[in-house]
Amino acid sequence: MSKLCIAGLGMIGGSLAAALKQSGHAGDIVALVRSESTGRRGQELGFIDGFSTDPAEVVTDADIIMLAVPMLSMREQLTAIKPHLKSSAIITDAGSVKAPFIEDARAVLDDMSRVVPGHPIAGREKTGVDAADASLYQNKRVLLTPLPETDEAATKVVRKLWESTGAQVEALGPEQHDRVLAATSHLPHVLAFALVDMLAKQQESEEIFRYSAGGFKDFTRIASSDPIMWRDVCLTNRDALLQAMDNLDIHLKQLRQAIDGRDGDTLEATFARARKARDEHI
Amino acid sequence: MSKLCIAGLGMIGGSLAAALKQSGHAGDIVALVRSESTGRRGQELGFIDGFSTDPAEVVTDADIIMLAVPMLSMREQLTAIKPHLKSSAIITDAGSVKAPFIEDARAVLDDMSRVVPGHPIAGREKTGVDAADASLYQNKRVLLTPLPETDEAATKVVRKLWESTGAQVEALGPEQHDRVLAATSHLPHVLAFALVDMLAKQQESEEIFRYSAGGFKDFTRIASSDPIMWRDVCLTNRDALLQAMDNLDIHLKQLRQAIDGRDGDTLEATFARARKARDEHI
Repeated sequence: MSKLCIAGLGMIGGSLAAALKQSGHAGDIVALVRSESTGRRGQELGFIDGFSTDPAEVVTDADIIMLAVPMLSMREQLTAIKPHLKSSAIITDAGSVKAPFIEDARAVLDDMSRVVPGHPIAGREKTGVDAADASLYQNKRVLLTPLPETDEAATKVVRKLWESTGAQVEALGPEQHDRVLAATSHLPHVLAFALVDMLAKQQESEEIFRYSAGGFKDFTRIASSDPIMWRDVCLTNRDALLQAMDNLDIHLKQLRQAIDGRDGDTLEATFARARKARDEHI
Repeated sequence: MSKLCIAGLGMIGGSLAAALKQSGHAGDIVALVRSESTGRRGQELGFIDGFSTDPAEVVTDADIIMLAVPMLSMREQLTAIKPHLKSSAIITDAGSVKAPFIEDARAVLDDMSRVVPGHPIAGREKTGVDAADASLYQNKRVLLTPLPETDEAATKVVRKLWESTGAQVEALGPEQHDRVLAATSHLPHVLAFALVDMLAKQQESEEIFRYSAGGFKDFTRIASSDPIMWRDVCLTNRDALLQAMDNLDIHLKQLRQAIDGRDGDTLEATFARARKARDEHI
């Protein structure tokens, strides 16, 4: 029986708490929150057994600390909890970018052996504890990026925690994680935000949104995501994201050239390759 | 009671036939097909009362001709049916780009008074008559772009035809249609195709697709669309699409600059604007 403290009871942290409660998690789940109202709401919803805005009250006897805050708040959170950590406490996170979290942890903590960086590949466009969903992680992937110095036992505890939410846990290196996620998640978010912002500014934006179809709705769904979270992702995964953007730019320029030059063969071949890849893999 | 001939019994034409049959359409529905097997399948599925590969057999006594073929096949189809049209026949289409269809019709037909260009804003990523769905147009928009010389009575017939599939019919100018659809449909398709093709070519493409989440799946759904149809859309709506691509390029460059320069305020403001616009309009 272990006590879990979740720092940040938003959609991600709240869904973890809800899923663990639903799975019959043995041990208290408490939250370190920025506002009392979030904690009260989490308790009303039955996700947590207690909460505080003061780390001294909820971190002190916690066996696992889960940091579920925006990427640029990680260091501040680590600093705030550090004086209250018991020596056996395992520290993990749910941040979208792994190398910067590791950098933050190294900068703040003296001992990295019980730090298990992680990232659940799941989400909703809604924010806040009311958007939490006990089934969010069901059959979704959670990627752990343990360090060479991470205790295997600590990794195992975090793995089990996620597995009890219904998630499939896998491990990979932090740099690979950040590169892969830049391409598959961070770049699409930037594209969706850019497209919707562009259309909203256009003269005919009323007609544009009015005559948009289901394809557009799906394509732009991720543009309803949390601006702060995605600002932080862009800033903390800057280099990998810039590289993915530049790579896409090359591909878009090639398509532009084909359209401009009425090169139907190139267009058809590109579209057919993409369709095949998507149908095979997704 | 009027006879409808659908030229092209793919997902779009097949869904129209299926919806009309389901709504109890009075009058025969026949198909002009490229291959016998498509016609037989349409008949098996109960969508059509007859078919032929020969326009003389199905066009001759048709009151309405619906052209539901890829954009670059329109002129050839119009040429093939022209000798068999009865003088009162109404000609309409389901093409994604309106100005080029009008140009094709003007080039082939002597009389434009019964030409009613149209475009159902609905679709699936599947192709062929087996992907047809009687409910495809339910509560979807169909845009008609009648010409100054189009008979109002002809427009009314086509409007009623679509309305009986459950669609909401609206009219706008062909140039506005093509400009709006370039932004809201054609550009997102090009982006999705480009992104998936880029990722499929990358070294880590296995991991990229493996670790992609629901957001990526939705974002790239339209990359499973028909390559021929979308090649034709790109070629026929070339100018409006190039303009939309260039406009997006400007917006992406601004975001790239903000990421590169670690300008969190610009990123957050852009993402918040996009989120607000999407949540308000979609």
